[in-house]
Amino acid sequence: MPPAPGDHDARRRDVSEAVWRVLAARGFGQLTLRAVAAEMGASTGMLTHYFPAKRDLVRYAHAIAEERTLAALYRELDVTGLAALREYLLDVLPLTPESVAMNRVWVSFWDAAIGDEELAATETARYERWRGKLRPHVLVALEKGEIPADTDVEDVVASAAAITHGLVVQALFDPDRFPPARQVRLIDDYLRTLRCPSTTGSTT
Amino acid sequence: MPPAPGDHDARRRDVSEAVWRVLAARGFGQLTLRAVAAEMGASTGMLTHYFPAKRDLVRYAHAIAEERTLAALYRELDVTGLAALREYLLDVLPLTPESVAMNRVWVSFWDAAIGDEELAATETARYERWRGKLRPHVLVALEKGEIPADTDVEDVVASAAAITHGLVVQALFDPDRFPPARQVRLIDDYLRTLRCPSTTGSTT
Repeated sequence: MPPAPGDHDARRRDVSEAVWRVLAARGFGQLTLRAVAAEMGASTGMLTHYFPAKRDLVRYAHAIAEERTLAALYRELDVTGLAALREYLLDVLPLTPESVAMNRVWVSFWDAAIGDEELAATETARYERWRGKLRPHVLVALEKGEIPADTDVEDVVASAAAITHGLVVQALFDPDRFPPARQVRLIDDYLRTLRCPSTTGSTT
Repeated sequence: MPPAPGDHDARRRDVSEAVWRVLAARGFGQLTLRAVAAEMGASTGMLTHYFPAKRDLVRYAHAIAEERTLAALYRELDVTGLAALREYLLDVLPLTPESVAMNRVWVSFWDAAIGDEELAATETARYERWRGKLRPHVLVALEKGEIPADTDVEDVVASAAAITHGLVVQALFDPDRFPPARQVRLIDDYLRTLRCPSTTGSTT
């Protein structure tokens, strides 16, 4: 007897949750059908029905992470300019157990993407989409006069993304030295320097 | 007949080179005895002599990457302060094919480290060692008056490491948008902002 439709959906959710727990605890490098099956208390055979190859499992895991990330990326903000940029950067940092898990998954995914052209292209596009979400707020900051008129918007977008992801990695590997309050302070320090007149360097 | 000592050393070098090529091309996630054997045109059986378990292979790969990284980290500089900090940050960026390969290995290693407490501890220590190499130059910049007197040295060290590693990841996945000249410009822009008076933000 085939399972009722409701059973099938519930099973898919179970699979998603198990994949997520394995990813957050062990990373993509150790994401295997066997590990997911053990996490669910199910058989590897049942899972091969969903994922005929390891690659299918990695793609599925990637899709789950993407879905969980997008919710934060498209939320509405009631601030603009640098204050909005700040919100988007703080969204990414590992400030809560949930965002620690999310970041472990994404940092781990970089490894999978490095060895796979198609996944690397997905990552390239994902980065550009993220920068695309930051860009309008830098433009508004420019229009509002929060940052110097000759600021290179693309470069600020890239450096904001860079300092945030670089903090993510340091904080993941050293939560004692990078507690949430320090991560937030480092982002605030960075945003403060964006206001700095661009001629500062010319005195050297 | 056992191999002559010279043969053994040569074989170890061959293994190292093969491990490195597999790492740079495919990342830690795809580093397997089979892949290394294929790269060498050797048998998997020969390699199990060197690496009884996958874990041994990963540790060995890590040791090779470490050795190649340390050479750059301990070179002498003929500049001091922010100019020396700049040199150390540029050393890390993927500006040449060799440094692209090195960075692919390290970014990939983050995945292996996320799922393994001992490797994660190694990564934590490695980060602190890197920050320890940057720190004296920030202190000299402070003494020379290149940066404001109330600068938090530890925070500058952390943000310098952050922006550099965040650029590494973006550049690896999008070399067209992050050619070497732009990477260097972004670091120079960041170093310029370090000179910014720390009271800039108080006007908001």
